Amino acid sequence: MNNMISIKDIAQECGVAVSTVSRVLNDHPDVSDATRKKVLEAAGRLHYVPNNSARNLVKTSSESIALMVKGVNNPFFTKLIKIIEREITHRGYTLELHHMDTSENELEVAEALVAERRLRGILFLGGRFNYAPQDIAFIRVPFVMCTYTNSFGSLAETEYSSVAIDDRQAARLAVDTLVNLGHRRIALVCDEMKDNSISELRSDGYRAALEAHGIAYDPALIVETKSFSDLHAIYESVRGLVERKIEFTAVFAIADIIAIAAIKALSDCGRHVPEDCSVVAIDGLEISAYTLPTLTTFVQPAGEMGVQCARILIDLIEGRGDNRHATFEPSLRGGGSVCRLTD
Amino acid sequence: MNNMISIKDIAQECGVAVSTVSRVLNDHPDVSDATRKKVLEAAGRLHYVPNNSARNLVKTSSESIALMVKGVNNPFFTKLIKIIEREITHRGYTLELHHMDTSENELEVAEALVAERRLRGILFLGGRFNYAPQDIAFIRVPFVMCTYTNSFGSLAETEYSSVAIDDRQAARLAVDTLVNLGHRRIALVCDEMKDNSISELRSDGYRAALEAHGIAYDPALIVETKSFSDLHAIYESVRGLVERKIEFTAVFAIADIIAIAAIKALSDCGRHVPEDCSVVAIDGLEISAYTLPTLTTFVQPAGEMGVQCARILIDLIEGRGDNRHATFEPSLRGGGSVCRLTD
Repeated sequence: MNNMISIKDIAQECGVAVSTVSRVLNDHPDVSDATRKKVLEAAGRLHYVPNNSARNLVKTSSESIALMVKGVNNPFFTKLIKIIEREITHRGYTLELHHMDTSENELEVAEALVAERRLRGILFLGGRFNYAPQDIAFIRVPFVMCTYTNSFGSLAETEYSSVAIDDRQAARLAVDTLVNLGHRRIALVCDEMKDNSISELRSDGYRAALEAHGIAYDPALIVETKSFSDLHAIYESVRGLVERKIEFTAVFAIADIIAIAAIKALSDCGRHVPEDCSVVAIDGLEISAYTLPTLTTFVQPAGEMGVQCARILIDLIEGRGDNRHATFEPSLRGGGSVCRLTD
Repeated sequence: MNNMISIKDIAQECGVAVSTVSRVLNDHPDVSDATRKKVLEAAGRLHYVPNNSARNLVKTSSESIALMVKGVNNPFFTKLIKIIEREITHRGYTLELHHMDTSENELEVAEALVAERRLRGILFLGGRFNYAPQDIAFIRVPFVMCTYTNSFGSLAETEYSSVAIDDRQAARLAVDTLVNLGHRRIALVCDEMKDNSISELRSDGYRAALEAHGIAYDPALIVETKSFSDLHAIYESVRGLVERKIEFTAVFAIADIIAIAAIKALSDCGRHVPEDCSVVAIDGLEISAYTLPTLTTFVQPAGEMGVQCARILIDLIEGRGDNRHATFEPSLRGGGSVCRLTD
């Protein structure tokens, strides 16, 4: 290292400031062409090689994959992130983590990120289901939509990759479970009915299941929590339903975490689950197998899904194959939160 | 962009392969000095500027901070990671995420990472409490031990930074809560009594609290789950305690997640919390405020702790101040999992 030429030497050789040399080597725009040429020639003449740090930059960043997590309080994501990170690292890439609030536009954040640095690819963990082609035009690296699809958008299937369960179908299965136990007054606890997102898909599945069973849809049974992760808001929304004295014998919660807060609200209102109200959900978090009662839920296979997210993206990055879509079937994890309606 | 000189042009000019030019510009070792000189001179002569990607490399990686998460199933970390990522990004750095199993040595992983790439600093989220000076000698960037300290090690206070609660004190407060309610047969559910880690510190606090109250320590009341995060293992360990017919009226679980699995095991054995057994824990997860019953727990202030982790590291990176230690007080979050012993 002692014999190496530093940018200080180049600066001295050229009679310019060290910061100027740095700007040239880092290709900042505010350097004249003449100075740039002089510095680069001197760098060549003096046999300058970038230092260790700079050398390693190339290796590092050329292998960076951004994981953009939207809705950070979603505990289903915790396991997915771990699996994705393992697979990405195992394959020789580095995972940059970026969190976003649900109010942020993941594509705008990604666009800024792609413009700002070298990324090999992007994994969107959570996002809108309604992208149009012009929305993704500036994402100039491969990307995978993880846990969501383009159900409400206008992308061609060949324009994007995705890893998700069939949310409508999962909701139908969940509601079927309740109907098969004799329930007909089934409340829906969702984020928003029309959010162009996962909540809308699962709400659609709820309505489709009711229709298939000849049960009239009753808007009074809909609880919109306006949040997927704010447990207090969910709790209060469900309390509101009970306090409005709406008759219902079962709840379909679109996510485990929503079901946990709903069960708490029901309990605090004196309604025990499952005796006084059955509850079924979608997700299959590990923790909800240890709540009282054990939650009856449709499991998203987080392990397989995480691996597929990473594999599809790396295949795209390394030029093996085109955009593709992995759709997983949720499976019932029986619990103690449902029972047959005996009245 | 069209007028820009590419590495192809340089290769042609020098009569070498494109890959050779790439190796020179990326400072790979397997290029002769003569070739290196020729390529660099040509790059200067042709007015070569690195392309967009390469240009942005510098910006990206020089600002990377690695977050090394050990014990990825620890839900307390989920919130911390989010807060840390926000603060790091807000301050203009990029967060690289690296997960490790609890069996991995975080210092070895960090040493490899530091050798391999340019990092500005490291946040260890979880780790051993017993580093010696030679263990950290190869971590040549600033680092902060997040959620742990060097309680069992031999580092001078000036050799490292840390952000943590006082784990012994938190355990004493938890056990005090139970003793003050009349409990004397208090089981401890921990990972391992002698793990040189958080479990040992909190176990020490348990013993110290018993001693302070003149209660004899009874090894029969100790449940070592051998895991901080495997809910099934925790569940089975606590079932084992009940099935061994050991008399106890209360449980101190060293973490919320352990308490949740313990309450499930007690319930499945016919012991209702709190009527038949009081349970208190440390962590203050949001979810444990929505379990049945609401968990009585000592809250680690995750928000403030996450911000401090990031700030201390960035201060070290940017040369503002020396190593420092932020110790937080856990606070009681009253719940429904404890009651006065009436027998």
